[in-house]
Amino acid sequence: MAKKSRGGITFPEGFLANGLFSGIKKAGKPDLALLASETECLVAGLFTTNRIKAAPVILSQRRIRTGSANAIVINSGNANACTGESGMQDALRITEKVSQFLTCNARKVLCASTGVIGRPLPIESVLDAIPKLVEKLSPNHHLECARAIMTTDTYVKESQGEIRLGDSIVRFGGMAKGVGMIHPQMATMLAFMTTDAEIDKDALKSALQIAVDRNFHTLSVDGETSTNDSVIILANGRAGNPRIMKGTAAYDEFVSELDAVCQKLRTLLIRDAEGATKYIHISVQGARSKTDARKIASSIARSVLVKTAFYGEDVNWGRIMVAIGNAGVPVREDRIDICMGDVALVHRGTGLGETQEEKAREVMKGQEIHLSVSLGLGPMTAEYWTTDLTYEYVRINAGYKGRT
Amino acid sequence: MAKKSRGGITFPEGFLANGLFSGIKKAGKPDLALLASETECLVAGLFTTNRIKAAPVILSQRRIRTGSANAIVINSGNANACTGESGMQDALRITEKVSQFLTCNARKVLCASTGVIGRPLPIESVLDAIPKLVEKLSPNHHLECARAIMTTDTYVKESQGEIRLGDSIVRFGGMAKGVGMIHPQMATMLAFMTTDAEIDKDALKSALQIAVDRNFHTLSVDGETSTNDSVIILANGRAGNPRIMKGTAAYDEFVSELDAVCQKLRTLLIRDAEGATKYIHISVQGARSKTDARKIASSIARSVLVKTAFYGEDVNWGRIMVAIGNAGVPVREDRIDICMGDVALVHRGTGLGETQEEKAREVMKGQEIHLSVSLGLGPMTAEYWTTDLTYEYVRINAGYKGRT
Repeated sequence: MAKKSRGGITFPEGFLANGLFSGIKKAGKPDLALLASETECLVAGLFTTNRIKAAPVILSQRRIRTGSANAIVINSGNANACTGESGMQDALRITEKVSQFLTCNARKVLCASTGVIGRPLPIESVLDAIPKLVEKLSPNHHLECARAIMTTDTYVKESQGEIRLGDSIVRFGGMAKGVGMIHPQMATMLAFMTTDAEIDKDALKSALQIAVDRNFHTLSVDGETSTNDSVIILANGRAGNPRIMKGTAAYDEFVSELDAVCQKLRTLLIRDAEGATKYIHISVQGARSKTDARKIASSIARSVLVKTAFYGEDVNWGRIMVAIGNAGVPVREDRIDICMGDVALVHRGTGLGETQEEKAREVMKGQEIHLSVSLGLGPMTAEYWTTDLTYEYVRINAGYKGRT
Repeated sequence: MAKKSRGGITFPEGFLANGLFSGIKKAGKPDLALLASETECLVAGLFTTNRIKAAPVILSQRRIRTGSANAIVINSGNANACTGESGMQDALRITEKVSQFLTCNARKVLCASTGVIGRPLPIESVLDAIPKLVEKLSPNHHLECARAIMTTDTYVKESQGEIRLGDSIVRFGGMAKGVGMIHPQMATMLAFMTTDAEIDKDALKSALQIAVDRNFHTLSVDGETSTNDSVIILANGRAGNPRIMKGTAAYDEFVSELDAVCQKLRTLLIRDAEGATKYIHISVQGARSKTDARKIASSIARSVLVKTAFYGEDVNWGRIMVAIGNAGVPVREDRIDICMGDVALVHRGTGLGETQEEKAREVMKGQEIHLSVSLGLGPMTAEYWTTDLTYEYVRINAGYKGRT
């Protein structure tokens, strides 16, 4: 067994993590995670746009407004959503107890939950696990932490990176969980990023927005946005770099590396999408506006007929045309080009024939497929990632609740 | 074998129909249908809102503006969509040849197509079949006609009805085909209605709009709106009733019976939805506006997580809450009630516990399930029909094109 060491969310200086079983999951798998910084952090977050928000989302959104935080406590196996006033009480009690053992202000402890909706948490059992959870906090326990946020994920999702800013090394870490109910606007899943950068508040907020927009917002597994989706970044300033301000070269480097860390998480998420056998990268070119390009990419990514056709390796480009036409965006049929990988399938709205379809069928046999759509209307582009829709997706989601 | 007689689309006076194999479908199944009236008809139609429209849709929309028509020629197995200029030429040639053999003006012949997108029609073979198609037109061949418009449908969908208006009997007929790519706004599939009523043009148009809105627009199988969806009604005035005008009692009776005929077709469509094992009737109450109620019903009906949960008979009401929250409509979580059949599951946003869930699980074992959502915000309501999402749906749609 490899020696435990720092990595993922504890790759940057001054972060500690842990995870354990607290009695939520029937199977006894880890279900309670804690990420903490040795010193107070600057914090930024983005949360679900679903009108129905879980208690931990409401609480974290409120606390993030203070601009700083020390820790995030996360449970899996139970979403603590649609749990009414007692759900909010549970979230308050959990963060309160964590803050006592961390000896920080309760308002500086954020929280997140993921799992089945509408069930009360086994709160006493969760509270009982907190002392041990805090006691074993360590930079070496990032894997335990990342494992304890998983639901139907089949592997841990971690990411890390670093940049040099002058004399300082600035580090980044990340962890995420998927893998169903993934769809943009807003969020997509739970994802937590850490950095030891010293950074201005607005710069952190804007960098997170950009990284989320480029990555998690371009990912659709099933068109669902959950009650719990949260992306939070903590920055503790331990790298000792000169403070990063918006509009500087250092800011650009920061954004670029955060983007890379999120991109890695996005790739891990899409590859673990429920029941998926294929990963489809959709790029839309030639749109009049970014919004138009996104709407069309999203419409293709959400179409169950397109997704089942990919599963069947069926070169049914007509379904792609249908999805383009359904996006609610003006298009000119006679300007649309479609390529599957490098194979041109449709030119100016009409099919290029059986030979090309035969070649495209070969492309579709791959696991990673690039689908390119050109609208011929303007200069704007968008990218999206989606998966095929499979028997396995239906199997997982027809019986999920029973298998918690 | 039962003696052939009038029924369905030929139930009203003066309508003739036929259907046969014209060389489009590989399997040799009927694929060309003709519906004609002995005398010119008033006509109204509603067509797909997809921005990409098949040639027959564009042509029929244009010709319907003249206000009258004699016949509709329909092929299945090939959508004649995304076929460019030659697709339009094909549609023109088919209607032209039909008009020659019917000895009417070509502009009075409408057309519709359904099937695979992007393949050219075997036009010579289709044209060759037209003389025989016209020759065998008969009031007794409605079944042949209804059969020739089917694609993955597993049975013929016909409907009929009659009302008495003064001394006259006014009759209605209908036929439709589904069964994937069914989603409102606009249309939903191919559906053709006939009536021998004498009716004012505006009255016919408005009656069709109401009947479509109440029925086909409340049906979602997979959230897809095809390039070809068309609903057309022909009224030949042969019943000899006093002309029906909007705002009269006769108009109300007309609308009510047309609604009933469409309702029958809707029921036949939903029961034949691709791969479905359950039929879910969603009713949303207590919305601020009709639009809000519809958006929420539609969001539930489209959610693949809700649909897979129904397949698995899994009382996962959290997914219903997620879909409600995702509808883009302001809701108050603490006012939401959810019932599965007669079983209350959620009251004021929180679950009513295991006993109720156990009862709801029994309800979900049925084939027809009524799901009721109350928002507690206003007086408006909406209804929607959908199906579960099954292995079989995935199987059919992963390999559809190969099986034409």
